[in-house]
Amino acid sequence: MSEDIQTLKDHYELAIVGCGPAGMAAALNAKIRNRDFILLGSEFCSPKLSKAPQIDNWLGFPEISGEDLRQRFLNHLREKDIPIVPFKITNIYPGPPFTLVGKEKSLEADALILATGVSISKLFPGEAELLGLGLGYCATCDGPLYKNKRTAIISYNQEGEDEANFMANICSKVYYIPYYSNPLQLDSRVEVKKSKVQGIIGSQSVEKLDFGEEQLAVDGVFIIRENLPAEQLVSGLEMENGSIKVNHNLETNLPGLFAAGDCTGQPYQLIKAAGEGGTAALQAVKYLDSLNSPERKAQGGTVFSENTLASR
Amino acid sequence: MSEDIQTLKDHYELAIVGCGPAGMAAALNAKIRNRDFILLGSEFCSPKLSKAPQIDNWLGFPEISGEDLRQRFLNHLREKDIPIVPFKITNIYPGPPFTLVGKEKSLEADALILATGVSISKLFPGEAELLGLGLGYCATCDGPLYKNKRTAIISYNQEGEDEANFMANICSKVYYIPYYSNPLQLDSRVEVKKSKVQGIIGSQSVEKLDFGEEQLAVDGVFIIRENLPAEQLVSGLEMENGSIKVNHNLETNLPGLFAAGDCTGQPYQLIKAAGEGGTAALQAVKYLDSLNSPERKAQGGTVFSENTLASR
Repeated sequence: MSEDIQTLKDHYELAIVGCGPAGMAAALNAKIRNRDFILLGSEFCSPKLSKAPQIDNWLGFPEISGEDLRQRFLNHLREKDIPIVPFKITNIYPGPPFTLVGKEKSLEADALILATGVSISKLFPGEAELLGLGLGYCATCDGPLYKNKRTAIISYNQEGEDEANFMANICSKVYYIPYYSNPLQLDSRVEVKKSKVQGIIGSQSVEKLDFGEEQLAVDGVFIIRENLPAEQLVSGLEMENGSIKVNHNLETNLPGLFAAGDCTGQPYQLIKAAGEGGTAALQAVKYLDSLNSPERKAQGGTVFSENTLASR
Repeated sequence: MSEDIQTLKDHYELAIVGCGPAGMAAALNAKIRNRDFILLGSEFCSPKLSKAPQIDNWLGFPEISGEDLRQRFLNHLREKDIPIVPFKITNIYPGPPFTLVGKEKSLEADALILATGVSISKLFPGEAELLGLGLGYCATCDGPLYKNKRTAIISYNQEGEDEANFMANICSKVYYIPYYSNPLQLDSRVEVKKSKVQGIIGSQSVEKLDFGEEQLAVDGVFIIRENLPAEQLVSGLEMENGSIKVNHNLETNLPGLFAAGDCTGQPYQLIKAAGEGGTAALQAVKYLDSLNSPERKAQGGTVFSENTLASR
């Protein structure tokens, strides 16, 4: 079901970020509406669903196991010929079109649905303030800027090891701070620190990593997490109580950007997530149609091909 | 699955009005949360779902027929021992507690979820203005007020025939205006009018029924529809573009009153309705808990029994 990242197009009408229930439900509706879209996910969609021993409120299917339901969701997507592209986004520039930046490539989308799951409850002190000022989420992307400099990589999974090894070839010093057990594949030049980070310090840009009892002087800090905090992914995105702020139509404060599922806040429930995903996709379709309206076209809005028009 | 109306209690923590996908999903979550609730519906839940030849976006279950899915929904409720009570509401007095007035009896609920389906797009001219001033939705309820007076019953289904026959025993004149074909069981004293109603006229109270080419002098008008327009059901309920206005938490402008599904507006989709129903139930539970908080209790809020508390 996954697709080679190199074969991806540079532009889509709609990008859906996240392959949990919200992202999957959004993709289904986008497919039914015959839109030009891409579903960006990870290698394993919805670990949370997979771990639920029994789900009682997926209407019509009592007492089903989470993993059974997850397999049915994935099969449904397979049947509808919807690939899940394992493309991790490290940054999104507001649009439209939105620019989604990943490690291997960037792509554009006229409309965007964020379905990224529960937001990280807590950023490191200093993380929000220093983003783009020596703090980032992709070391290999920014590598050349840190030639002969000192960097630290805070990682929640093994993905960070590749990043650290890459940086060891460029930087004068690389620290690695694992937030998981037993990092294995590290270059001997990388120094592992097993302390907990208390904060990231810097006035104009990153200066130090604070461990409380110790402070390390660094020029750059990279944080590798499974999911990025949504507000860090898209600058200017309005949040509320740690979740993406949406209205009843799942619109965020940025036109063309919708959000669905756990990332919009509680309740963290499957049926809420799927319902919001389905709705967000239809709202995105409505938004795309508005871009395509005659008056918008006259103002230089996106122009769709005749083919796309005919399929609506 | 249905329950005798006479055995109903006078008070519930939560009432859910409507037994389509939104009402059913709400009931499931209310049951899982072990709340004291009632699901009020009709004899046949979701004719709309039943008529869908094929549903493609009920995640995990591709290409299922609407009727098959409907049966699964009903079975799920049966398995969880959730009765659907065929109790038609003709009026709701805002609360809390809300008072739900039906033909046979009234009941109270501390919180309320409206899941009444697509709102009637268009009221008759004069209908909103004359509600309670000679215009109502239950003739038998108000019958005694119209002794020896002239009334008209506008009905979208056969239910209106019983109402008309009942009124024929009380009123000096009963007109019957059917908005369906072949009314059958009418008392000979009832006069059938097959014209279309252009409006209901009256300054202080109902005076005339306007058919365009003809006007009938009447003292009372009753309109019998499958669903009541939500804004007429609950006075003061805020609407937007013909739908109940809700925020992302499915809260209406009236505290304790939530709405879910088609009645909150487009998209009119199964998964949106079910998702909103599930969410509305959890928001209602949160609301009920807030009523039950120590400070609320001190202010004379609703007090729950120890038993209810222990089960949370």
